[in-house]
Formats: sequence, structure tokens, C-alpha cells
Amino acid sequence: MLAILKRILIGRPLKSTELGEQKLNKTKALAILSSDALSSVAYGPEQILIVLMTVGAAAFWYSIPIAIGVLVLLLALILSYQQIIFAYPQGGGAYVVSKQNLGRFPGLIAGGSLLVDYILTVAVSVSAGTDAITSAFPSLHSYNVIIAVTFVLFITILNLRGVTESASVLAYPVYLFVLALFVLIGVGIYRIVAGDVAPELHTSLGTPVAGISLFLLLKAFASGSSALTGVEAISNAIPNFKAPAPNNAAKTLMAMGILLAVLFSGIVFLAYYYGISPRPEVTVVSDIAEQVFGRNFMYFFIQGTTALILILAANTGYSAFPLLAVNLSKDKYFPRMFSIRGDRLGYSNGIISLGLLSIVLIIAFEGKTEHLIPLYAVGVFIPFTLSQTGMTLKWMRERPKGWPIKLTINLVGAIISFIVCMMFFLTKFGQVWPVLVFMPLILLLLTRIYKHYEAVAEQLSTSSCEPVIPIEGNIIIVPVAGITHVVENSINYAKSLHAHQIIAVHIPFERDEEAAFEQKWKKWQPDVRLVTLHSPYRNLKEPLMKFIDTVERKARESNYQVTVVIPQFIPKKAWHNILHNQSSLMLRTHLLFTRNVIVTTVPYHFKK
Amino acid sequence: MLAILKRILIGRPLKSTELGEQKLNKTKALAILSSDALSSVAYGPEQILIVLMTVGAAAFWYSIPIAIGVLVLLLALILSYQQIIFAYPQGGGAYVVSKQNLGRFPGLIAGGSLLVDYILTVAVSVSAGTDAITSAFPSLHSYNVIIAVTFVLFITILNLRGVTESASVLAYPVYLFVLALFVLIGVGIYRIVAGDVAPELHTSLGTPVAGISLFLLLKAFASGSSALTGVEAISNAIPNFKAPAPNNAAKTLMAMGILLAVLFSGIVFLAYYYGISPRPEVTVVSDIAEQVFGRNFMYFFIQGTTALILILAANTGYSAFPLLAVNLSKDKYFPRMFSIRGDRLGYSNGIISLGLLSIVLIIAFEGKTEHLIPLYAVGVFIPFTLSQTGMTLKWMRERPKGWPIKLTINLVGAIISFIVCMMFFLTKFGQVWPVLVFMPLILLLLTRIYKHYEAVAEQLSTSSCEPVIPIEGNIIIVPVAGITHVVENSINYAKSLHAHQIIAVHIPFERDEEAAFEQKWKKWQPDVRLVTLHSPYRNLKEPLMKFIDTVERKARESNYQVTVVIPQFIPKKAWHNILHNQSSLMLRTHLLFTRNVIVTTVPYHFKK
Repeated sequence: MLAILKRILIGRPLKSTELGEQKLNKTKALAILSSDALSSVAYGPEQILIVLMTVGAAAFWYSIPIAIGVLVLLLALILSYQQIIFAYPQGGGAYVVSKQNLGRFPGLIAGGSLLVDYILTVAVSVSAGTDAITSAFPSLHSYNVIIAVTFVLFITILNLRGVTESASVLAYPVYLFVLALFVLIGVGIYRIVAGDVAPELHTSLGTPVAGISLFLLLKAFASGSSALTGVEAISNAIPNFKAPAPNNAAKTLMAMGILLAVLFSGIVFLAYYYGISPRPEVTVVSDIAEQVFGRNFMYFFIQGTTALILILAANTGYSAFPLLAVNLSKDKYFPRMFSIRGDRLGYSNGIISLGLLSIVLIIAFEGKTEHLIPLYAVGVFIPFTLSQTGMTLKWMRERPKGWPIKLTINLVGAIISFIVCMMFFLTKFGQVWPVLVFMPLILLLLTRIYKHYEAVAEQLSTSSCEPVIPIEGNIIIVPVAGITHVVENSINYAKSLHAHQIIAVHIPFERDEEAAFEQKWKKWQPDVRLVTLHSPYRNLKEPLMKFIDTVERKARESNYQVTVVIPQFIPKKAWHNILHNQSSLMLRTHLLFTRNVIVTTVPYHFKK
Repeated sequence: MLAILKRILIGRPLKSTELGEQKLNKTKALAILSSDALSSVAYGPEQILIVLMTVGAAAFWYSIPIAIGVLVLLLALILSYQQIIFAYPQGGGAYVVSKQNLGRFPGLIAGGSLLVDYILTVAVSVSAGTDAITSAFPSLHSYNVIIAVTFVLFITILNLRGVTESASVLAYPVYLFVLALFVLIGVGIYRIVAGDVAPELHTSLGTPVAGISLFLLLKAFASGSSALTGVEAISNAIPNFKAPAPNNAAKTLMAMGILLAVLFSGIVFLAYYYGISPRPEVTVVSDIAEQVFGRNFMYFFIQGTTALILILAANTGYSAFPLLAVNLSKDKYFPRMFSIRGDRLGYSNGIISLGLLSIVLIIAFEGKTEHLIPLYAVGVFIPFTLSQTGMTLKWMRERPKGWPIKLTINLVGAIISFIVCMMFFLTKFGQVWPVLVFMPLILLLLTRIYKHYEAVAEQLSTSSCEPVIPIEGNIIIVPVAGITHVVENSINYAKSLHAHQIIAVHIPFERDEEAAFEQKWKKWQPDVRLVTLHSPYRNLKEPLMKFIDTVERKARESNYQVTVVIPQFIPKKAWHNILHNQSSLMLRTHLLFTRNVIVTTVPYHFKK
């Protein structure tokens, strides 16, 4: 039943050799890896205007120089990440770069931030998209959480089906969104050129504004930079590209950068020229669209594709999180299961964990994840800063051909990212402080995991000092509940093992049962020694454990091995299990985890 | 940790031989077994007035003849249950009586009704008591469910500590309640005799009332009979009494009957004479108390003890449910675990199940369980009818000395109970119909359980036809993940078992690992045959199961036994388990439940 459902949802399992067919070409890669970055255009420009509005609409012209600052940062990031792609063609992005150039600890900070960040990406973008939809259909508003969770499940299943399938489904909405915004910007500019737009709507560049300060401008800049989240995704996902992966990834990154730059500057410019003020209930993009087109088909087309891309932005997290988890897991900082490919060759454990954790976030915040956005932005700029600092050091150390230019690019990127980071802490500390709590916790967790795996590897190694002691003989203990077929089976098996000694152990709850059972036993199995342990407190475990301990202590002295053979009947139907005390199951688990004995279960399958 | 908490809550475990000390004397038995019946006085008279009010306050005088009818029914029930106590001194009440005299099926109907009824008793009475408390302190109203659940947990723990301990704690509130009502009735009557009460308050007996019908009177009678729920509890709990149990139980039952009769008729009479009309927000008892005493200390004392006894009425369920479950379980109709005594010699599984199920009910109905009352009343009168019909047949069959009187008592009881039962179905079908749904389901469940235990007993029996086949030799399969200490240990153990053959099985996910591993293995364990199974779908289970099936089929032909030896390392700390794929655990469970092989786990305990 479950297996069939799994096949329907996920598809047939793929052979390991089919991996090549699962790689992405540039068009599809651009769609699934840039949805996060491109969707930021829907809210990034608005963030700038919201900050500027605190001193008045006259300050809106500052959005143009600030946007230029953001574009410079974008350029630095794109160039920098292109350099990273070629330097680290196996992927890994900020984690690998920071680890190799700055050391283990900065690497873990970058990796840890990104892990949390991808979870936030999914939760925040799906919630935002759901909000956009339910704003259009207010009757759905009370189902926000359910709708958001359904979207997460849908994207999770899509990703479990495999990266190419999800790319095929997701490519259309992404390209439609880009097309919609291009039309909007094109028509918007045409109408300006055609003189349709009154020039009084905007204050001209350079108008002096009272109350403006460097702090405010930096705050606006930091807010605008939130449009750059998701830029690093491609560098994490290089292994998903078709060969030659680094070249294709670099080209895709450049294409994404250009698209992002055009859309971002277009929206900022139109917002400025049309004199748009940010309003709580209407987005800036919606305002522009209404002024350019009026409330016609194009307006709704832009609104619809925007909602869609906000939801699909989550997919970037699905591409990057599992690969980051693989990298951490290969370095022993993350549970090993994250580095195993699932049925469809995706890293299904990473995909499922990401889905579940973001659902937990959505439910915990009841779908209102807006105030997680600053947290999410700072979680992006920490790894940005670290990876570019790492690249700067790399160039200083290696000094390859043309290193001064490369160094300059990364140094500029590092400095700007660092400033953005600091601005978040200075201007939005109230929303950003949780980073300071959970980062140490994540670092602690990752290093604890590492230490455990190191200890395991050492103890598993056959070359480690402790030699395996040869077994002189076996002593078998069989707990028996009565004279039954199941017990007979187990005793029969024990006899076939040529053990040194077989001891049957019976634990009656009532004194008067004892003698009768011993007599019956002598008749039934005269050659098997029976030990009766009285249990005044009606407890099986304690007397049995004491007995096993005694036997085990003696056995160890002469290198004898103790095996506990547990007779267990297996009911025909699963529900029957609740009708039987699961004492054998509990006994087995307890023995395995606390005693140095071998546990053998002899099943007896009921036929009805 | 958990063990310490358990000791604090429940107390030290008791030896089986200490059972005698846990028996009840009459005073304590009366307290814990009659709280349900006595508490009914708090709402029974009100139920009569509510029905009569539908034709007007002039009809209230009918409450007197109706109360006399209820008293007759009470007398019949008490006498009848006294006869049951002596006839079935081992306890069991309606279930045992119906089973032995009417047959298996009526017995199960009686038993099934009572099982559900005791759960309803706990849920309904605790909810009612909580309501009474939160009515006094309205700020607590929104915590109703939490308060009710806390009370259930408290009563559950009290009962887990043992029947005598719970009796000691519960005796005071029960006797205080009885005292409070005696004072109320005494002072109330004194004031009537003293001429303090205006005679115009009530219409005199026999006043003709327009619109009264036999149907209405029967409905009022049935509603009033809900005061008799809980009368059967003593007959279920005879084994809890000190010797001579039947005599003590019969005396306790009679004492309860007298108390109930006095309190019930006193309240009905005062309500009639003081001209009390039932009002939605004030109970009849509260109204009487206010008129008799005014709002002084006595009024609050009566209200407080009433709230308390409503909650403690739940305890009757705790005394009767586990014993009924024991009886059903001994007859194989109920899971065996219900017949095992816990640490404190109570039937802890029954106590815990009752607590959990009533908590589920309280949460499901959000503490508003009032409309479960008719369901609960009908669930009591079904077993009343069945047990008394059973007794009637018994007397007709056995004809002991004085049988005509005995027969008359039971026959009258049976007829009245049957009428009450029918009245519930006719007048309150909307609230009572669920009985018709869940009774068949419960009967089905009980008989399915019975069939399963019968089948098990047959298959376990050593005298059943299938003889145990002697084992010619053993074939051992060891799945190996790598060349490690853990595997070395397991191979070493397998070698010590003098098996016919040992096969190590390796399942690589990548083709290129194969040859390298085989070579290493040949060097390491040259005398153990290695089989390599390639798994193109990265799945351990399927190829291994196929291989085991092949080996097992061959082995069976020549009476060889297949054992799968699973190497398992046991991490030092529990949380480490999540860092390792639990493939060995899943493998073991799957093998045990689906294959006819023996499963041996060789643990390797990590030291760090």
C-alpha cells in the first residue's frame, strides 16, 4: 500500500548509472536555481522606499543611488561567485570556500548559517506567496497555513521525483514572471518616453532633503540588499549541472545576474519616476502595474506570476540545502544519511528534512513569517562575507595570473557584504538577535556530530589495538514462559549449536506454580537444565538480568560467550501484537543496549 | 529518572503476598464504591422536574409519585444485586451473571456496555465537577479541560497507588457530602414543621394538570432513574472486600441503598415543598440550600462537597472497570495484559487505560460532556436488564429454597429496568443512538480477540499435530558493511557455532567498489565465503532478502536451519543512534516478521 503510494508520488526508482540523465541544462538550471534571487525583485525595491519614507516622499530620489549601490554589490557578488565556481568546481559554495581558506570554524559558521537560511527561504517564500494568493481570494484567508503546507508538500514531492522533473515543471512560471516584468518595465518606460507620465510625480535627483543621514541611507541600502539573497545558490549546486559543469554554472550565474540587475533597476526606476509610495496593503510592483496598465489582464498576469514565483523561490532552497548537507556530511559534520541518494537519485533525506522543518516553521509562526525576513537576510550575508574573505586570502596566498583584479573583486565584495551584515545588526537588532543564539547551538551540534563519527571510525578500525578474543565455547540461556511449541522450537535450535551448556530459565509469579512446572519440565526436556527464578514483584526483567549478569561474569573469565535465545511467536496479523505482552521485544532491546551478550530470536510464525 | 518519578507517584512495589493488606473494610468500601451512586442525587431529582416543567409548574407534585417509583426500582435493584453478590461471590456483576444464565452473547453485551459506561462515568462526572468549580470561580472557566484532565490524572495516580490508599483519601469527601445533605434535609424539614415555609409555594398532591400524559410521566421516571447509575459497582468489586467478602459487600450495598433512598427522597420532597423550579444556571440542590440556609457557610459547604463528590464519582469507574476487564480477559475476550497486577497489586493496565480513554473523551468534547449523560444512563440499564433477566432464569432453573420471592424480586427489577431502557430509546433517541453503533463494534472486537487467543492456544500447544523437525545443521549468513571490528566480532561468533556453512554477504552501491572489497576480504578472512550482491537501486533490503530466500529454500529441503547474524554496534549515548542508519534494526524486524529464519544480533558496545 505505502509502497504503491510512494511509486505514484515519486515515480519508479532509478539506477545509480542513470545519474547523468538527471543533470540540468542551462535553461532549466536558471529556472530552478534563480527563482529565489529573481523573486526578491518583488519586495527588494519596496524595502528601500519603506526606509526612505521615514523622512518623507521627497527622499525617494535617493533610491536611485542606493539601487546603484545594490547593483555594484550584485556585480561584485556575481564576479566573485564566478571565481568561486571555477576554483571549486565540485560545488559547496560558502561552506567549502570558507573552510578551505579561513579554517574549519569559519566554514562551519558559513555552513550553519546557510542550513538555517534555506529552511527560512522555504518558509518565508511559501508564506509570502500564499499571502499573495489569499489576498486575491479573501475567503481562503483562514486556510493560509494549510495552503502553505500543501505547497511545501507539493514542492517536496516534486524534488523527490528528481531535479530534472522539478526543473521542467518550474521553468514555465519563472520565465513567465521574467516576461511579465520585462513587459511591465518596457511599457512603463515607453509611456515615460511618450510623455504619458506627469514629471511632477517625482522630485528630481539631488533635491536636498531635511533629516536624511548616512545611517538612514545605509539602512535603506541594507534593506535593498535583501533582493540579493539566493545569489549563492548556483555555486552550491554545481554538481547538478551538465558537463562541463563549471562553465555552464558560470554562464547561468551571469545570466541570472543580468536578469536580476535589469529587473531590479527597472522596478526601482519606475517606482521613482511614477512617484510610488509604499502602502501597507498594496505592493510597489502592484502599484506600478496599475499605473502602467490599469486594472486589465496584464495587471492580473503580473500579480499572478509574482505570487507563483514567490512560492517557487522555495525551490532554490531544495536545490541547495541537500547538496550543502552532503558536503557537511562527507566532512562528518552532519548525519551520514544525508549523503545517501534516494530512489530517484536526489538526496532525499535532505529534501524531506528541509520540507518538514519549514512546515514546522510555518505552523509555529501560523504562516506569518514576514518578520523572519531580516533574520534570513543576515543569514545570507554572513556566508557572503566569509566566502569572499576566504577568496581574498586565497588570491593573496596563491597569487595566480591576474591576481590583483581577482583580489580586488573579492575584497570589494567582502567589504560591502560585511557592511550590509553590520547594518542589519545595527538597524534591526530586534529581529536579528536570534542568529546569536542559534549559531553557537548549531556549531556545537555540528562539532559534537564530528567528534562522534571520529570516535566511531577509530573504534571500528580493525587495526586499532584491541584484538578480538577467540571464543572458547558458548553458553546459551533460554527464557521459557511455559511448555509450548514456541519454546520447543527454541530449545531445539539451541541444541543444534553445539553449545557448552544450555540453561532454560523460568520466572513464575506465584510460588505454587514453581514445583509443578519443574516436574513437567523434567519429563519434557530431561537433558536441559532448568533454573527457576522467583519474582515476588511480578517483574520478568530484573531477576532475569541478575541471572544473566552472574552467568556472564563467570563465562567471561574463561572466554565463554553468553547467548540469550528468545522464543518469539509472530502473530499472523499486525493488530494481534497488541494482544500479547511485548516482553520479548523489550527484553531483547534492553539486553542489546545494556549487556555484553548476544541475542538470538527464534521466531515461530502463527498460521492463523 | 523515570523510575524515580514512578516511585514518588505510585510508591514502592508490593509483593504478591501483600495482597490481603490491600483489601477494603466496609466503611472505606462504601466511600469509594458508592460515590457514583450518591453523587447522582445531585442531579437526579432535577432531571424529573425538567421533564415535568414542560407542562407547567403545577405538574411538579407528580415528582412525588415518580420518586416513589424510582425508590421501588432502587429497592428491586438493591435486593436483586444482593442476591447476585451471594450467587457470584467472586464478583463480575452483570457480565458474569448474564454470561452464565443467558449465554455468551448477552454476557458480552452487558460487559461491553459496562466497559464503555465506566469510561463515560469518569468523563461525565469529572467534567460536571469541574463545571461546578469553575462556576464558582468564573476566571478559571477557560481552563476547564486542563482542570478536568488534571483531576483524571490525580484519580488515576491515586488508584495506581492502590485501592486502600485511594479509599483513605476519598472517604472524607464522600462522608462530608452525605453529612451536608443530611443537615440540609433535616433543617429543611424542621423549617417546614416549624411553619417557616409558606404552603402556597407548592400545589397539593392530586391537583389535576392539563396536558399531562403517561408518556411524559414515563419520560420523567426514566430521567429520574439516572440517579441509580452506579448501583451495580459493588457487585463488580467483591474481590476488593475483606473476608467474608460477600457478606461485607451485601451489607455495604444495603447501606448504600438506604443512604441513596433517604437522600433522593429528601431532595425530591424539599424541592416539591419549597416549590423549586429548575433553572438553567442554578442547580436544584443549590436552590434548596439557599432557601433553607440563605447564602451562609452551610450553603457553600453543600456546594463545595457536591462539586467534590461529582469528581470523586469517577472513582467508582476506577474500582469497577479494571475488575470487569480482568473477568473479560480471563475469558479471553480482552487483551491478556489487563489481568496482570501492577507494582502496587492493582490492575494497573485497566486503571491507565480508563484514565487515558476518559481524557480522550474530555478533550474530544472539550469538557462539555453533559449530553453524554443519557448515553451513559442507557449503558447502565442495558446490563441491569440483562443481569436481572439472567437471575430470573437462574431461579426458574435451580428453584432453591424460597425461590418464588427471589424470582419475583428479580423479575420486577428486570421489567422496570427494561421499561427504563425503552423509555430512553423512545424519548431520547437523538442522544442514545450511538449505543446502536458502538455496541456491535465492541462485540465484534471482543469476539475477534477471543478467536485470536483460541487460535494461539491451539498453535502453542505441544500436543498439537505438527511435530518439531530436528535440525540437521546450521547455515549462517552475515551481512557485512565493511572490514571493521564489529564485523570481525560477528564472524568470530559465527565460527564458534560449528555451523555447516558461513556466508558473508556484501552489498556495494557502486560497481567499482566490488572487486577491491573482494580482494581485501580474501586477505582478511580467507576461510569465510563472501557473496557480493550488486544493488543498482541503492537498496540493501531487497537484494539481501532475495539471497536469503534462495538459501532458505535450499536449506529447508535438507532440514538445515538458516540463521542471519547481524553485526550491530551500540553507541555509547542514545542520541548517537540518530547519526547512524538504523538499517540493522529494520533488517532484523523485517526478517523476523516475514522470513522463516533465526535472527542473531551480535552487539559491539562502543566505549566512547
